[in-house]
Amino acid sequence: MDIKGFQFSAVEAAIKKPGRKDLALIFSEKPALACAVFTTNRVKAAPVLLSESRILSGKAQALLVNSGNANACTGENGMAVAKQTTKLLATELGISDEYVQVSSTGVIGVQMPVERICSSIPELVVGLQSGTLDDIAQAIMTTDTFPKMEARSAVANGTSYTVAGIAKGAGMIMPNMATMLSFVITDAYVEPALLQKTFRLGVDDSFNSITVDGDMSTNDTCLLMANGAANNSIIKSGTPEGDVFSSILRDVLLSLAKQIVRDGEGATKFVEVIVTGAASDEDAKLAAKAIANSSLVKTAFFGQDANWGRIFAAVGYSGAEVDQSRLSLSFDDVLMAENGIFAGDDAEARGTVVLKKKEFTVTVNLGLGNGTAKIYTSDLSHEYVSINADYRT
Amino acid sequence: MDIKGFQFSAVEAAIKKPGRKDLALIFSEKPALACAVFTTNRVKAAPVLLSESRILSGKAQALLVNSGNANACTGENGMAVAKQTTKLLATELGISDEYVQVSSTGVIGVQMPVERICSSIPELVVGLQSGTLDDIAQAIMTTDTFPKMEARSAVANGTSYTVAGIAKGAGMIMPNMATMLSFVITDAYVEPALLQKTFRLGVDDSFNSITVDGDMSTNDTCLLMANGAANNSIIKSGTPEGDVFSSILRDVLLSLAKQIVRDGEGATKFVEVIVTGAASDEDAKLAAKAIANSSLVKTAFFGQDANWGRIFAAVGYSGAEVDQSRLSLSFDDVLMAENGIFAGDDAEARGTVVLKKKEFTVTVNLGLGNGTAKIYTSDLSHEYVSINADYRT
Repeated sequence: MDIKGFQFSAVEAAIKKPGRKDLALIFSEKPALACAVFTTNRVKAAPVLLSESRILSGKAQALLVNSGNANACTGENGMAVAKQTTKLLATELGISDEYVQVSSTGVIGVQMPVERICSSIPELVVGLQSGTLDDIAQAIMTTDTFPKMEARSAVANGTSYTVAGIAKGAGMIMPNMATMLSFVITDAYVEPALLQKTFRLGVDDSFNSITVDGDMSTNDTCLLMANGAANNSIIKSGTPEGDVFSSILRDVLLSLAKQIVRDGEGATKFVEVIVTGAASDEDAKLAAKAIANSSLVKTAFFGQDANWGRIFAAVGYSGAEVDQSRLSLSFDDVLMAENGIFAGDDAEARGTVVLKKKEFTVTVNLGLGNGTAKIYTSDLSHEYVSINADYRT
Repeated sequence: MDIKGFQFSAVEAAIKKPGRKDLALIFSEKPALACAVFTTNRVKAAPVLLSESRILSGKAQALLVNSGNANACTGENGMAVAKQTTKLLATELGISDEYVQVSSTGVIGVQMPVERICSSIPELVVGLQSGTLDDIAQAIMTTDTFPKMEARSAVANGTSYTVAGIAKGAGMIMPNMATMLSFVITDAYVEPALLQKTFRLGVDDSFNSITVDGDMSTNDTCLLMANGAANNSIIKSGTPEGDVFSSILRDVLLSLAKQIVRDGEGATKFVEVIVTGAASDEDAKLAAKAIANSSLVKTAFFGQDANWGRIFAAVGYSGAEVDQSRLSLSFDDVLMAENGIFAGDDAEARGTVVLKKKEFTVTVNLGLGNGTAKIYTSDLSHEYVSINADYRT
């Protein structure tokens, strides 16, 4: 994969435990157009606060990211560390520290090992000669079981360009947003307005439409950098080239988001929850989120139990307008319930077959209007409990 | 325990599986003052809809309750069954069916075995000669591991009276309300306004202040009947007798609610979540509920991991006004974090000792105002997943 004008590096800074790379750098040879979305949690990690203030310039040239420590609930000292480390990195790179984004993931409430990070930064910069985006995807993993990457290329007016992204997820995954870091880069030369609009819509349909456990993290970040190094003629909104760019950027975002759900902590199922017929799109999203976050629904998925009644119960308390006599529900194409009641004994056997699959769709029609929503989620397994009971040890 | 003028009966109607009593009756020899609260889920079971309409009279004389089938998502047929069975019971008892409350708990979406219930009703009425309230507490259990009962007696102007209650819970437990049935009876002669006010406040502080898994059921019901059979002089609001009555009724409700949390599905911990210093009581309740419902917080409790950062993260997404630099948190009397940051290494060891206890308190001070709230909750264990993965089998 060739993404022009970007360099990568990852090193072992022993932030949490020795033996794995946990400090990484993405560097653009020239300042890139940048946009980002961050957690809406009111308890925000220091790197989120710092990056949020810096992204206002619309530009970024480097991203410093670590796993093993979230630098959250670390107070003024945490902010001082974020500033100190990005300042040191900026000096080493010979760029303005205002163009350095910073991101952290890991345990909350523990101060960062600032000396180990600072002493690793020169090595990190030297590593830009030989690193790959895959190295970064590996270095940002916490309880993830596989690195998450996606890339697409296209041609704009005869010049090819690439959109590539990486992500980490696993737990604390919830719309708006997740314990989720995602960094997407492109060498395409794109009109800023098109970039921002596509990014915003793409994040809504991807990272803001997934949930693993309903917990929202203090560190969620999705950052996009576009450095124009492909030297294509500028891609504008409302053109065929603009449509192609939007389409592949959204594909990359959605692919990364789905990978996060597939690798949700302890997940054994990937479930697409579709709500139709709601009084509004907002109601549809409320209902879909209630289903996707219900512990009872998710344990039934884990147990491969076609317990559609729990899904109706979740819809009922979601806050969406509901008329129980109009509800219908299908697992894939098997109609389980209609007009609020069971569709018959045959459905039970056929529905159970669907739930034994690794991936399936749950469609609930509220029978009230035209509102729709889609949420991707996983099941709730023994393994989730094990991972999170012992996370810090 | 002597509760004058009430009779009890429970029989085996083989509603779900043979070998246990699953159909029960509480009968008051004369019509009793009655008040009730029901689930706020928009998907409501037929017995809830029927009982809700009947309680408007302010009177009840009998309660028919079954376990093994929720009679929820059963459509018009479910309502017909609720009417038919209560009509038959009323005829056998020689009372108006408008005075018969009905309640069900168990699997959602399966039609009731109406013939088995109807054929069991005569036996149920005969059993009133010899039954006890304890029989009812046993018969309404589903995944409960122990029956839940509480009783208190007092003397009003020289005449003794009793308040006694039973409950079932286990899963789908969430404020406003829970998969939770509770029936409280008293032979006290009480002013209706005092009865209703005390009941409402008592339910808010008990059943509406507990959560096990954040799921709200289709069947929640809390019913109070006061038949006055103790023949005490009427207990009025604003008198010492009124205060005593309020106090013991609220004690009974709170005791039953706490028993539900202690017996939450797979629960190994009983945790009192206290939020103080919120901008308002509403904000305090939002924060306390977010903590008590967080899968990440609850798995940390199960793992006996003093992971206070997850609790701050939950407060941060609760919707309550939060200034992260003012947050403090204690496990029992061990201060874990102050001004938003960790209180020091000594706290970690001492906090871990607290979390190894079976019962402890989590207190979060938001440092903003005078709002307070208290929620009782349990942890999230492997056993919860096992119970709910296989509930219907």
